[in-house]
Amino acid sequence: MNAAQKSALVVSAHSADFVWRAGGAIALHAEQGYAVHIVCLSFGERGESAKLWRKGEMTEEKVKAARREEALAAAEILGASVEFFDIGDYPMRADQDTLFRLADVFRRVQPEFVLSHSLKDPYNYDHPLAMNLAQEARIIAQAEGYKPGEKIVGAPPVYAFEPHQPEQCEWRPDTFLDITGVWDRKYAAIQCMAGQEHLWEYYTRVALQRGVQAKRNVGITSARNIVYAEGFQSIFPRVTENLA
Amino acid sequence: MNAAQKSALVVSAHSADFVWRAGGAIALHAEQGYAVHIVCLSFGERGESAKLWRKGEMTEEKVKAARREEALAAAEILGASVEFFDIGDYPMRADQDTLFRLADVFRRVQPEFVLSHSLKDPYNYDHPLAMNLAQEARIIAQAEGYKPGEKIVGAPPVYAFEPHQPEQCEWRPDTFLDITGVWDRKYAAIQCMAGQEHLWEYYTRVALQRGVQAKRNVGITSARNIVYAEGFQSIFPRVTENLA
Amino acid sequence: MNAAQKSALVVSAHSADFVWRAGGAIALHAEQGYAVHIVCLSFGERGESAKLWRKGEMTEEKVKAARREEALAAAEILGASVEFFDIGDYPMRADQDTLFRLADVFRRVQPEFVLSHSLKDPYNYDHPLAMNLAQEARIIAQAEGYKPGEKIVGAPPVYAFEPHQPEQCEWRPDTFLDITGVWDRKYAAIQCMAGQEHLWEYYTRVALQRGVQAKRNVGITSARNIVYAEGFQSIFPRVTENLA
Amino acid sequence: MNAAQKSALVVSAHSADFVWRAGGAIALHAEQGYAVHIVCLSFGERGESAKLWRKGEMTEEKVKAARREEALAAAEILGASVEFFDIGDYPMRADQDTLFRLADVFRRVQPEFVLSHSLKDPYNYDHPLAMNLAQEARIIAQAEGYKPGEKIVGAPPVYAFEPHQPEQCEWRPDTFLDITGVWDRKYAAIQCMAGQEHLWEYYTRVALQRGVQAKRNVGITSARNIVYAEGFQSIFPRVTENLA
Amino acid sequence: MNAAQKSALVVSAHSADFVWRAGGAIALHAEQGYAVHIVCLSFGERGESAKLWRKGEMTEEKVKAARREEALAAAEILGASVEFFDIGDYPMRADQDTLFRLADVFRRVQPEFVLSHSLKDPYNYDHPLAMNLAQEARIIAQAEGYKPGEKIVGAPPVYAFEPHQPEQCEWRPDTFLDITGVWDRKYAAIQCMAGQEHLWEYYTRVALQRGVQAKRNVGITSARNIVYAEGFQSIFPRVTENLA
Amino acid sequence: MNAAQKSALVVSAHSADFVWRAGGAIALHAEQGYAVHIVCLSFGERGESAKLWRKGEMTEEKVKAARREEALAAAEILGASVEFFDIGDYPMRADQDTLFRLADVFRRVQPEFVLSHSLKDPYNYDHPLAMNLAQEARIIAQAEGYKPGEKIVGAPPVYAFEPHQPEQCEWRPDTFLDITGVWDRKYAAIQCMAGQEHLWEYYTRVALQRGVQAKRNVGITSARNIVYAEGFQSIFPRVTENLA
Repeated sequence: MNAAQKSALVVSAHSADFVWRAGGAIALHAEQGYAVHIVCLSFGERGESAKLWRKGEMTEEKVKAARREEALAAAEILGASVEFFDIGDYPMRADQDTLFRLADVFRRVQPEFVLSHSLKDPYNYDHPLAMNLAQEARIIAQAEGYKPGEKIVGAPPVYAFEPHQPEQCEWRPDTFLDITGVWDRKYAAIQCMAGQEHLWEYYTRVALQRGVQAKRNVGITSARNIVYAEGFQSIFPRVTENLA
Repeated sequence: MNAAQKSALVVSAHSADFVWRAGGAIALHAEQGYAVHIVCLSFGERGESAKLWRKGEMTEEKVKAARREEALAAAEILGASVEFFDIGDYPMRADQDTLFRLADVFRRVQPEFVLSHSLKDPYNYDHPLAMNLAQEARIIAQAEGYKPGEKIVGAPPVYAFEPHQPEQCEWRPDTFLDITGVWDRKYAAIQCMAGQEHLWEYYTRVALQRGVQAKRNVGITSARNIVYAEGFQSIFPRVTENLA
Repeated sequence: MNAAQKSALVVSAHSADFVWRAGGAIALHAEQGYAVHIVCLSFGERGESAKLWRKGEMTEEKVKAARREEALAAAEILGASVEFFDIGDYPMRADQDTLFRLADVFRRVQPEFVLSHSLKDPYNYDHPLAMNLAQEARIIAQAEGYKPGEKIVGAPPVYAFEPHQPEQCEWRPDTFLDITGVWDRKYAAIQCMAGQEHLWEYYTRVALQRGVQAKRNVGITSARNIVYAEGFQSIFPRVTENLA
Repeated sequence: MNAAQKSALVVSAHSADFVWRAGGAIALHAEQGYAVHIVCLSFGERGESAKLWRKGEMTEEKVKAARREEALAAAEILGASVEFFDIGDYPMRADQDTLFRLADVFRRVQPEFVLSHSLKDPYNYDHPLAMNLAQEARIIAQAEGYKPGEKIVGAPPVYAFEPHQPEQCEWRPDTFLDITGVWDRKYAAIQCMAGQEHLWEYYTRVALQRGVQAKRNVGITSARNIVYAEGFQSIFPRVTENLA
Repeated sequence: MNAAQKSALVVSAHSADFVWRAGGAIALHAEQGYAVHIVCLSFGERGESAKLWRKGEMTEEKVKAARREEALAAAEILGASVEFFDIGDYPMRADQDTLFRLADVFRRVQPEFVLSHSLKDPYNYDHPLAMNLAQEARIIAQAEGYKPGEKIVGAPPVYAFEPHQPEQCEWRPDTFLDITGVWDRKYAAIQCMAGQEHLWEYYTRVALQRGVQAKRNVGITSARNIVYAEGFQSIFPRVTENLA
Repeated sequence: MNAAQKSALVVSAHSADFVWRAGGAIALHAEQGYAVHIVCLSFGERGESAKLWRKGEMTEEKVKAARREEALAAAEILGASVEFFDIGDYPMRADQDTLFRLADVFRRVQPEFVLSHSLKDPYNYDHPLAMNLAQEARIIAQAEGYKPGEKIVGAPPVYAFEPHQPEQCEWRPDTFLDITGVWDRKYAAIQCMAGQEHLWEYYTRVALQRGVQAKRNVGITSARNIVYAEGFQSIFPRVTENLA
């Protein structure tokens, strides 16, 4: 990554979350020249690999390996780099080493924006943990007193991407990203997730619904024909010079 | 206003609200070439003209005339046009004619964005009424069946500008606008409000506080030196192609 | 309707709302033997008939007539009766006569449950008005002192059906109704809405998404294979003798 | 009422509300020397007089007369004055004349504090209407431009007293008033409400529960033995010189 | 427990919570044939045994033994089984072993529904911890990858039972359970709690208040005469085939 | 501290928080005769000492020493005692020993009221941790079973003082404290914070804004001329005998 290249960071609790929830944002910004980096905190080996476990003759290592392959393939299609923290899931727990490791990623990546999970999710306690970890790591990476002398980070915007049952997670999209132009790539990445085929059409419909909603929120001068979109919820206020 | 010019609409309950709460946004967008149009629903003749009333020998007509002059002078400084609906204040009430009149303004102005009051204000019932009126007028202006054949409006974003006691109004800024470059103009407009001198420094401090907060929410690549800002709360999700 | 037959009431702001948002509930309870009665407060003639208006040579009367036909056809397919209050839309306004008229419907129908719109909808001010009207009519119909001597109503549960952009309306489904068995009928009713073809697939996808979510919230002993569902938000607590 | 006497204002939607919900506060402040004035907007003739209506041979005038007697008797026991606006209930509607009439009461009474209903109540739409009317009247009474020359009011604190089903009304008590010393008087006032005997024990239990809760929130130095209490929710922040 | 018997699970932070807050639900479902199992995470030995400690000559072991006896006696009266995790209280802390132990209980019991504490309680930090532990254990018990090969659990509904000061805990009952028929058994169980006699009448009044409220929310056809009830707040949406 | 002296407790995450956020409350109550005790959980050595770190040749020990000097000087000016827990910041973590240590401070101090941080702060995870620690320590100090035989504490009110970006922290002041009389002392204490000079004027403006707001919320009889104020949010309901 050269100095002038802009970058972004995605913190994904399980190895497939970044695909369903932010695949379009990743592909779109990659296309715009961003170096998008993904941290998968776990492989989702326990909680989100039901189909693999049902095959029989399975071990946690085999499941992890299969999930790693899927995630790598998806990231490649989306045009992003990916690293795996392998801290386990169901339950996910993050100690201080993990927190500092992620803070160091923030310093290295210097992201223009950050994507992670919703702050509440009664169906999945790993998701809010991932978001809180991302937020606390960002705060530490901003502190002059943490590893003094290193380049600190600014205050990149943080967005919560869409959870599986949005209303139950008190998640409300305040930002719609038009991903029509990169939908093919997102759907190709989705298809890497062989173990969760039941979700392919679910998240295709999510993208179509958000596309319709995005069109309903477009102002006057736009001539955009939005078909697919992703929704995001901002954690922080944005700073701008234009309100249109 | 020529066809290519972009425009914006401000719906102000009383004749000075647009200055304290959105003067920077108005001046900034005017500078950017927007035709900014202000609707003052009332002159604030009863509720926000205490100093004039205390002079004695005062009538409602005299108060209105004085307030009109102040508002016109302020709008001119900010670079905006202004019209007065004169529907009265304390209490403000809007019938269907007022609603249609405002819907017609929406159709005529075709705004890129809309500014009005917070949805709650336990200190001032006219303020939420103004915002609700603006929102319902926008909805009617969008309907094909209202005055069929006229050009309808799209879905311009609507923002609630800052109320006097923000936390009590459950108002949370999700957008900071850097108004450093036009602060002089906003402060000049503020000084037109001779009857409310006690608010001049109050809203100068508001702008400085929001300026500090805006700086705290800027991402990595910005080199902006923000001193003054205005905060806004979005009513609708925004549609974008970039999350930075 | 004989004395022993159970009944339900749907209060729909515009003539098609009951189809998109509650068509499955209507068909399902009709199938269970309920007399389901629908009140359409308006025909949606101004705000939800864009396609008709774009045909040209159109008048409000023609639009209303077309919408009435569609609504009657849809209600027949769903197995419900329907009446039209014709109070106008965009904006909708309800005076006391309308309120009493609806209270009288409550007394006549004696519904076991009531369906209407979400309490908030920044995209459509007619919707919350309809729900508030329904709730206040229910309260009046409960009062001994309103038309003393008539049979009052009890406290039937009230549900808000799904708005177009659920999160923006602060609507959260707390009840999923399995409509798999009556989906064919709902989709047939949807197809009556010739003027809003762009919504057919949107609400098919809504039903599929809610179906997936419903399956995710089913307890242990169920063998149900849910494909399509509708979501509802309760206004009041339910009273029960079993928590499973 | 002499110039030095402190006063308070209670705005009650129906003629018995002030007893169940604020009878202790009224009696306690009367004992402390306050001139407590009660405005009953209606007699609750339609909605809260079921027992009277069931007697047969009843007319609205007879019901009102009976309710007036009860309210007068209760107010006398509590040591307060009462006036009746008689604007009707189920539904309650307030026009501008009613609003100004209540604003004039504010100016005449110059209350140190104000009590009215909760801002939400899905079981009773008259209650929030009464609170909103009280709040808007207070705002108008504060305005120099309303009946210029009259003595305006300051910013007396406003409290929402307890609704019948507190959690469903999103009402949260932030203030407990110890009414142990005046409980006898409150219970005597309660017994004036012959038509609503089913509520006597309900509101006795409310007072006991709030009493236990009040004791649980008392700091260190208090030696109070609280048995009965009333809960209130503040609308505005309080201003103080001591945090204990 | 035979294969066909339905079951339920109650997760109680301290050894008496299940009695005050869910004793009616336990007795009622036991009567309906459910095998109700209670997990007491602690004995409440530090925080909820004040009367025992004040006796003097007391040790933590003696307190625990006395509390265990009370809980066993109460559970027997209610018709439920009980086990004690003995993880300590004030503060309560749960490590991964405790989490897995509880997940194993979920798998063993296969509950039709789950009861635990409110998600917030500023008076008692052990209570939200217990609910969060219960929820996370449920999620783990649902995961195919946790102890692969075991029978996983479905998605049983989870309810928060009533905290001591409901409004302060942001707890809102959305479900009322009629416990009139088993009230005698609940009150007998309450009387086992010799150390907390001050709460006997408090929770009797709670049951009476909820009974009155339940009656106010019953629809048309019910002939139930509810005197005592318990309130519950659902964490997840319910899935149903009937809205009455 | 003699037995009759009243006391108060402030729990500050970093060594300067108590000055910006509660310096007025501390000075005012000290003036009223309270023994105000401050616990600084950390020195803010990593996260809030940027200026020191930028000097170069700096170590964590030097930063801590400098911050300790500043805090001691400020506390002396305000008239309060202070102790340092030195548990580290960015991230702050509190184990059970820290919790018991703080519970012991509660027992020793027996505070009439407690001040700490807001419950949410997306900019600073140490702040909510400090408040939660303070609340849980208070609960433990109330328990008879924790160090039986010691004098337990009552239920002193707890307030959240003002965070840096109040609306983003969902903090709403419900109490304004008039600090006009002690402003000089607060500003002198502020000036001890040599490392954070950029905040001096920020918090001066906060005090002026809260002063204006406090004046807007004063009832009728007050003759107070408030210029400077601090805002606080109550965690618990207050118990009172007067509502004015």
